[in-house]
Amino acid sequence: MKYDLIRNFYYNKEDYSDKEVTISGWIRTIRDSNKFGFIEINDGTSFKGIQAVYDDSLPNFSEIGKYPVATAIVAKGKFVLTPESKQPFEIKATSISLEAPSDSKYPLQKKRHTLEYLRTIAHLRPRSNTFAAVFRVRSLASYAVHKFFQEKGFVNVHTPIITASDAEGAGEMFKVTTLDLLDIPRDDRKEVDFTKDFFEKPASLTVSGQLEGEIFALAFRNIYTFGPTFRAENSNTPRHAAEFWMIEPEIAFADIKDDMDLAEEMIKYLIRFVLENAPQEMEFFNSFIDKGLKDRLEGILKSDFERVTYTEAIRLLKESGKEFEYPVEWGSDLQTEHERYLTEVVFKKPVFVTDYPKEIKAFYMRLNEDDKTVAAMDLLVPGVGEIIGGSQREERLEVLKEKILKNGLKEEDYWWYLELRKYGGVKHAGFGLGFERLIMYLTGMSNIRDVIPFPRTVGNAEF
Amino acid sequence: MKYDLIRNFYYNKEDYSDKEVTISGWIRTIRDSNKFGFIEINDGTSFKGIQAVYDDSLPNFSEIGKYPVATAIVAKGKFVLTPESKQPFEIKATSISLEAPSDSKYPLQKKRHTLEYLRTIAHLRPRSNTFAAVFRVRSLASYAVHKFFQEKGFVNVHTPIITASDAEGAGEMFKVTTLDLLDIPRDDRKEVDFTKDFFEKPASLTVSGQLEGEIFALAFRNIYTFGPTFRAENSNTPRHAAEFWMIEPEIAFADIKDDMDLAEEMIKYLIRFVLENAPQEMEFFNSFIDKGLKDRLEGILKSDFERVTYTEAIRLLKESGKEFEYPVEWGSDLQTEHERYLTEVVFKKPVFVTDYPKEIKAFYMRLNEDDKTVAAMDLLVPGVGEIIGGSQREERLEVLKEKILKNGLKEEDYWWYLELRKYGGVKHAGFGLGFERLIMYLTGMSNIRDVIPFPRTVGNAEF
Repeated sequence: MKYDLIRNFYYNKEDYSDKEVTISGWIRTIRDSNKFGFIEINDGTSFKGIQAVYDDSLPNFSEIGKYPVATAIVAKGKFVLTPESKQPFEIKATSISLEAPSDSKYPLQKKRHTLEYLRTIAHLRPRSNTFAAVFRVRSLASYAVHKFFQEKGFVNVHTPIITASDAEGAGEMFKVTTLDLLDIPRDDRKEVDFTKDFFEKPASLTVSGQLEGEIFALAFRNIYTFGPTFRAENSNTPRHAAEFWMIEPEIAFADIKDDMDLAEEMIKYLIRFVLENAPQEMEFFNSFIDKGLKDRLEGILKSDFERVTYTEAIRLLKESGKEFEYPVEWGSDLQTEHERYLTEVVFKKPVFVTDYPKEIKAFYMRLNEDDKTVAAMDLLVPGVGEIIGGSQREERLEVLKEKILKNGLKEEDYWWYLELRKYGGVKHAGFGLGFERLIMYLTGMSNIRDVIPFPRTVGNAEF
Repeated sequence: MKYDLIRNFYYNKEDYSDKEVTISGWIRTIRDSNKFGFIEINDGTSFKGIQAVYDDSLPNFSEIGKYPVATAIVAKGKFVLTPESKQPFEIKATSISLEAPSDSKYPLQKKRHTLEYLRTIAHLRPRSNTFAAVFRVRSLASYAVHKFFQEKGFVNVHTPIITASDAEGAGEMFKVTTLDLLDIPRDDRKEVDFTKDFFEKPASLTVSGQLEGEIFALAFRNIYTFGPTFRAENSNTPRHAAEFWMIEPEIAFADIKDDMDLAEEMIKYLIRFVLENAPQEMEFFNSFIDKGLKDRLEGILKSDFERVTYTEAIRLLKESGKEFEYPVEWGSDLQTEHERYLTEVVFKKPVFVTDYPKEIKAFYMRLNEDDKTVAAMDLLVPGVGEIIGGSQREERLEVLKEKILKNGLKEEDYWWYLELRKYGGVKHAGFGLGFERLIMYLTGMSNIRDVIPFPRTVGNAEF
C-alpha cells in the first residue's frame, strides 16, 4: 500500500485539491462531539500535520473518539483546500482505520513538558514539536554540509575513529580496549601489556581527524571530514558533550585568507539552506525558542564578516572601558565574554580574529614572520562566540620539528606528519566546526543535550 | 592566488581553448631532453592530470628537469586542445615555478608497488592512481547515499557511537573507559566499580544503530543512519575490519516488500551515480583492477532483482547437484559459496532471499504466520554474495517479549525498545549495508584494507 505523504501536500497543495487521498500517521490531538470529530494527524514527513474531519456516518465513529494520542491510523477521504481557515487544507474523512494502538498512559500528552523531562524519554521526544524541529534541521544541515563541499569538488574522507597515537593532543581521550578489566595483563616492568590488547598497543577515540585530513589534502587538494569525535572531559556544561560530530575541511595551495573565505561561504550556505528547506521548523524556533532568530540569521547572510587581528582585538577590548570578569591581556586566550563583546557590541556581526600568540595555539599552526604569532583564525558569531577554529598549517619541515620539540612532543610520533612536508608539502589550511554548536546556532536551542539524538555526557550514556 | 582546476578542464575543455591558464599541482612524471621537457601534473581535483610542455626559453629550464616526482609547482601557459594525440589537451608553459620541493627518495616512484607495500605508506598512497580512484569513488558514493535518502525526504540520524547497553548483540564489542588500567577500582563484590568510570557504567562502541534508528522511524517515518560501527572480532580476513561505516535506513508503515523495493532502488542509484560521476576512475578499475566490472554493474542497472524464499533457495541448491564444502540443509545459514552460487549461477543477477528460519536470525525480526520463519531478507549480488541484510521488525509487544526471553535476553535492557510497541508501534522495516562492502563491489578491490583510508584490524591501528 502506497500512502500520500503530508510533506507533498505542503509542497503542492493545488495538485491534491478535491482529490481522494489516503494517509497513514499518528494522532497528535483528537476532539469530538456526538456528531463530528477532528483529528490532527502527523505522518512524520512534515513538521506540520493535517486535520482530518469525520462524522457519525463512519461505522466506527464512536470508537475513533476513544483513540488515545499516538494511535496510528489510516485515513482516507477528500483533500480540501481551506483558504479561509488557519490551516491551508484538511481531509474530509470517508474512512478511518486503526493501524496500531496507543495507550492513555502515553507520556507525551498535549501539555507542555520541560526539556529536562523530555531528555529522560529520548525514545519518544522526537515526536514532540521541539525535537521534531531540531532533528529535522539537524538532518538538513548535515545534508547541506555534504552538498556544499561536494558541489565544490571536495573529497569526503572518513578519518579513523579509533587511534593508536595520542598525537592529536586536543583533549582528554577515551581508552578503547578488549582487555579483561578484572585481569589486566602486565609486562615485566609492571606496565599494562598492550601486546595482549586488540591493536597490540594503547588505543583511544579520536579527538580530531585533522592530521589525517592533511594527508588527503596533499593528495586531493580539497577535502573535508564529517564524523564523530570525542572528549573525555569532566565538564558538565550546556555546551559540552563527550561525543559530538565535527566538520574539518582542509585545503591545499591555500593560505589563511582562503581558509576564512571558505568558512564564510560555508556558514552562509548552511544558514540559507536551512532557512529555505525547513521554513516551518525555523518559524517554530523563531516563535517559541528564540525570538529574533530569523532576523539574526538573515542578517548574517547580508553581512561581510569582519577580519581583525588578535592584537587589534585586544586593543579594542582594552579601549572599550567595559569591565570583564577575566582580564584582557595580550598573550591570554580570549574568553567567551570577550568574544561575544567583539562580535555583538564592537562589530555587530561575525568576525574572524586572526594571528594569535603562538603560546596559546597548537604546534601545527604556521608561525608568522613576527615570530610571535601564528596564522590562526577563530570565527566569532553573535549569540554564541567562537564557532569555528582554524589555521594555516606549518608546512616548513624545520620549523615544524622545532615546534614539536618545544611543545614537549616526540618527533617519532609524528613521522608521517613530518614526511608530508618532505614531498611536495605545499602551504595548506583548514578549520574545524563543531556540528552541534552549529545546530544550536541555527535553532536557538541552548543545551547541547537537546540537539543530539542520544547525548553522551559525564555519567550519562542512556539509550 | 586563484588557480584553474584540472577537473574543470575535463568538464569544459572548449571553454579553455587557447586561453592563458595557471595551475598548481604535483609532478607525477617528468622527462626532458636538452631542448624540451614534459611534465605530467596532477592538482588533486581530477583522476587524470594534464601535461605541461616547456622548452629552453624558460630561464629556469635546466632546474626544472631536476625536480623530483611529487615536487609542487605552479605552471602558467596556454591551454591547447590536442585532438590528434592521446591526451585531449595540454599546456604550453610560459612559466614554471617551484611551490614546494620533493626529494628523490620519494617512495611513490613510477614503478608498480604492491597493495601490501602501499598500506605501509598510507600517508602517501592516496597519491597513487589506484588509491586516488578508490578514495574519490568512496567520497562520491558517500555523497550518493545522502543524496538518495535526502531527496526522498528521509531524515538522517546520528545514532550514538558510545553505548552503555549491550542490547545490540550483533558481535564482540570494544570497551570504552577512562579508568586507569593499572589501577582498576573494585566494588565490595570484587567486580569492576564502574561508578568510577566516565559514564558510571560499562560502555562500548556500537555495533549497530538500528534500535535507535527504530525510535526515529516511529517519529519521522523514513530515516537513515550513516556512521562508523565496530566489531572487536579476531578475524583477520580480507573482508573484515574492526571499524567500518554502515548505512541503516528504517521505514515505518512499511513491510518487508517495501524494504526490498527500497534496497533495490538504492543499490541502482548508487551504481548509476558512481558510473556517471567518476567515469575516469571506473574506467581505470575496469582496465586494471577488475576486467568486466563495468559490464557487471551496468547489467545490474538493467535487471529486476530476483526474490526467492530461503526454503525455495535451499531446494534449488539441493537440486543443483553441485558439491558444496558446507552442506545445504534447511535450518542452517547460507554460506558465501551458497550465496554466490544462487546469484551467479542460478539467477545470474542480484537476488533477495527472504523468510529465514527464526533460529538463525535476530530476535527483533518479525515472526511469520508459519511460526517457523521470520520476515528477513538478504540481498546477494554476483561477485560478492551478501551485501545487504534486513528485515521487517517485530512490532507485536507480546511476541517481541517472548522472543527476547527465548533468546536469553533481559526485558529490562529493552525497556524503551519495548515501549515503542505500546504507543503507535506500526509495522516497520529496515536494512543494513556495509559501506566498505559496497565500495569493494563498486571498484572491484578485493581487500577491505584498501577501501578504508586508515584501516583498523587486529593488531593494526597505524596513522
